[in-house]
Amino acid sequence: MEVRALDDILEQLRLALERDDLAAAAGIIEALRPPDQAEVFSELEDSHQLALLPELNPADSADILEKLNDEEAAELALALSADTLTRIVDEMEPDEAADLLGDIPQAQAQAVLDRLEDPEEVHPLLLHPDESAGGLMTSEFLALRRRMTAAEAINAIRAWKPDAESLYYLYVVDAHNVLSGVVSLRQLIVAAPGAPLADIMDPNVISVPAGTDQEECARLMSRYDLLALPVVDAARRLIGVVTIDDVVDVLVDEATEDIQRLGGAQPLKTAYLETSVVTVVRKRIGWLLLLFLTESLTGSVLRHFEDALQAVVALTFFVPLLIGTGGNAGSQTTSTIIRALAVGEMGLRDALHSLWHELRVGFVLGLGMAVAAYVRAVTWGSSPELSLTVAVAIFIIVVWANGLGSILPLLATLLRIDPTVVSGPVMSTLVDATGLFIYFTIARLVLGI
Amino acid sequence: MEVRALDDILEQLRLALERDDLAAAAGIIEALRPPDQAEVFSELEDSHQLALLPELNPADSADILEKLNDEEAAELALALSADTLTRIVDEMEPDEAADLLGDIPQAQAQAVLDRLEDPEEVHPLLLHPDESAGGLMTSEFLALRRRMTAAEAINAIRAWKPDAESLYYLYVVDAHNVLSGVVSLRQLIVAAPGAPLADIMDPNVISVPAGTDQEECARLMSRYDLLALPVVDAARRLIGVVTIDDVVDVLVDEATEDIQRLGGAQPLKTAYLETSVVTVVRKRIGWLLLLFLTESLTGSVLRHFEDALQAVVALTFFVPLLIGTGGNAGSQTTSTIIRALAVGEMGLRDALHSLWHELRVGFVLGLGMAVAAYVRAVTWGSSPELSLTVAVAIFIIVVWANGLGSILPLLATLLRIDPTVVSGPVMSTLVDATGLFIYFTIARLVLGI
Repeated sequence: MEVRALDDILEQLRLALERDDLAAAAGIIEALRPPDQAEVFSELEDSHQLALLPELNPADSADILEKLNDEEAAELALALSADTLTRIVDEMEPDEAADLLGDIPQAQAQAVLDRLEDPEEVHPLLLHPDESAGGLMTSEFLALRRRMTAAEAINAIRAWKPDAESLYYLYVVDAHNVLSGVVSLRQLIVAAPGAPLADIMDPNVISVPAGTDQEECARLMSRYDLLALPVVDAARRLIGVVTIDDVVDVLVDEATEDIQRLGGAQPLKTAYLETSVVTVVRKRIGWLLLLFLTESLTGSVLRHFEDALQAVVALTFFVPLLIGTGGNAGSQTTSTIIRALAVGEMGLRDALHSLWHELRVGFVLGLGMAVAAYVRAVTWGSSPELSLTVAVAIFIIVVWANGLGSILPLLATLLRIDPTVVSGPVMSTLVDATGLFIYFTIARLVLGI
Repeated sequence: MEVRALDDILEQLRLALERDDLAAAAGIIEALRPPDQAEVFSELEDSHQLALLPELNPADSADILEKLNDEEAAELALALSADTLTRIVDEMEPDEAADLLGDIPQAQAQAVLDRLEDPEEVHPLLLHPDESAGGLMTSEFLALRRRMTAAEAINAIRAWKPDAESLYYLYVVDAHNVLSGVVSLRQLIVAAPGAPLADIMDPNVISVPAGTDQEECARLMSRYDLLALPVVDAARRLIGVVTIDDVVDVLVDEATEDIQRLGGAQPLKTAYLETSVVTVVRKRIGWLLLLFLTESLTGSVLRHFEDALQAVVALTFFVPLLIGTGGNAGSQTTSTIIRALAVGEMGLRDALHSLWHELRVGFVLGLGMAVAAYVRAVTWGSSPELSLTVAVAIFIIVVWANGLGSILPLLATLLRIDPTVVSGPVMSTLVDATGLFIYFTIARLVLGI
């Protein structure tokens, strides 16, 4: 089956709910795939959602809560009884269960933990921050002993019957639970039944400590084409496994956050059209006001040069053109540098290299723009002196914007601030005031005003 | 082993190459993991790279060419003899081999194809565009027949000995090669040996036609947590499989391209610091000049209102502030909308919904900014009339920028242009001229000039 049009299904579901036929509604949802279940479910009104959750098969409710975004899931969980919630959490992946329990009040989370079938699967995961390897990993994995044979390992897998997603690779540990190798299911099948795992396994296994940032996990898995990444404690004991499906979500979410920040807004936590106007405003107004205050500097610069403006009104005509070009050149630079930092192509050690790179790029771009600006000024009938002023100013502004644009994201990284704060809007705003200062200083020198 | 510091290794490698000890150099590279091999290799000079490739184990050379970016790999391939290149291509994944052969001159590609061991694995892949499911898929997969038993299937896998990466799922086809189900290796192991695949398999398998865009493949695999996605022809015959490692690369690359475009530049094809100044300039100058021309409109608007400017020079002080705020509000909107489009959260059908959403957001943000602007103008000692002009103008400009920012990416999509062309710089530039027009029109009305 290809992906189905969900609108018809949603329509049927609404009809069933309106005539209070919860069993029929549950049947409609249970027939869908988990992500489709969550999408249809999230379109329902809150009251219908709450009525429906206890009626669904707990495994389906668990899938839905896992696929909803964290805030929605926590809101629903809050309104459920401890018993209903426990039945659902019992069916969730341990890493997702830990995320959910971390998002609800501690008393309620404790009540659920006390009733869980396997609290020891979830409990250790609650100790790690959400955005670390420890927060991302699942504790549901099968560790095989080095001394086992291939046949014994296959029998252990038969007996364990894990979810398919836990079985990308099988990790091998020694008697102290220390990670010592990795073996694929295919290798087990192909190997002689009596061969010990120690001989079959690849001892050269990449692992991370629990505190590793989730972006670093994503980078490693993407670089080495890994489907799973084992997480170890300080003694290299295996404590969990990060799987590729979670990492794909991390990659998509981090790119979304970066793009929203680069646009000069705080990232939204929910899908755009489902986010209320009030929330969108809250995520944007702070930056907009801060940039407004910074941009106020441009007014001060212009007032400072009021005499020059009064003497040559034509100077004004080039103001937006000059500062706009500077902002554009700066945005081009920061977006490139920020992405290179995010994918690990460069780091702080490359600061001087990238500054030098951008200064040369700025030099060439500045020359090109100076020619364009000179031609434009002359065709507008500006005096040769004014045209020269504009050309020299745009050259210096572009070089300056490129240099600033290459240094600021690195400076942010050095100060342990997310480099995406140096967004396009921030660049434009910074270049505006400084660009005007450069422009009028040159004007005074060249025009003698 | 954790990821190693590659700098020392690079140093050793350079020493070996300088004393022309190719065997030692090859040994150093062959001891590394493929991505590390490629990273170290790409740091070498071109002449060293070319000398080294034929010396390496062909499987390692193949890994390196797969991991290098497409342009670098094609450049190296061009300089290799047909025999050497064939030995390497024979070891490449069929999808990567097809990509490489598509990037070199047809005569050379044909010479390699004629010598390949399994040309029929690569040949059909050459027919599909690089960025489609057909271009992304591998033809190296094992299709099992419906009538096989679990035990027969396991024996077939033993006999085939595929790479681990081909074995996420096993697809089941009927006698006409039509895709009819999917089964995991785990299910095969757990099932009774005599059970036919038709009974074990999940018949509900998601597949795509070969022409599907790679971003759509990534979206499906991310949504349904798939490790592999089967590709079918018009008759639903299985022709290939897209694997998650390729999709992770697609997700990362597409996000990189989007971010660079949003910064107002054409995307770079190579790692930033390895891209020459000339190339970086070429990718940026076009947009910078185009935006410059558009931005020239601001000069025309200012000249149009020259009399007003001469009458009240203080009007000038607010020009950068007003157009800067408009550009910022527009950038905030477009980056959100563009990302929502990219991850499939919204589509063209949501145009009116998102316009309405943004107009309301703009209304609230505009009111907030109007208050801030009024206060700022008064504290600068502006007249109440001028302060009122600035406040009203900023309100209208913000609403206008939000509306424009929500409509333009959708308009681009409608015209089948990548919506990321509506970058922050494009938004600022469009809002600058229109914002000035709004500002001076209000000034004339309020100030009576």
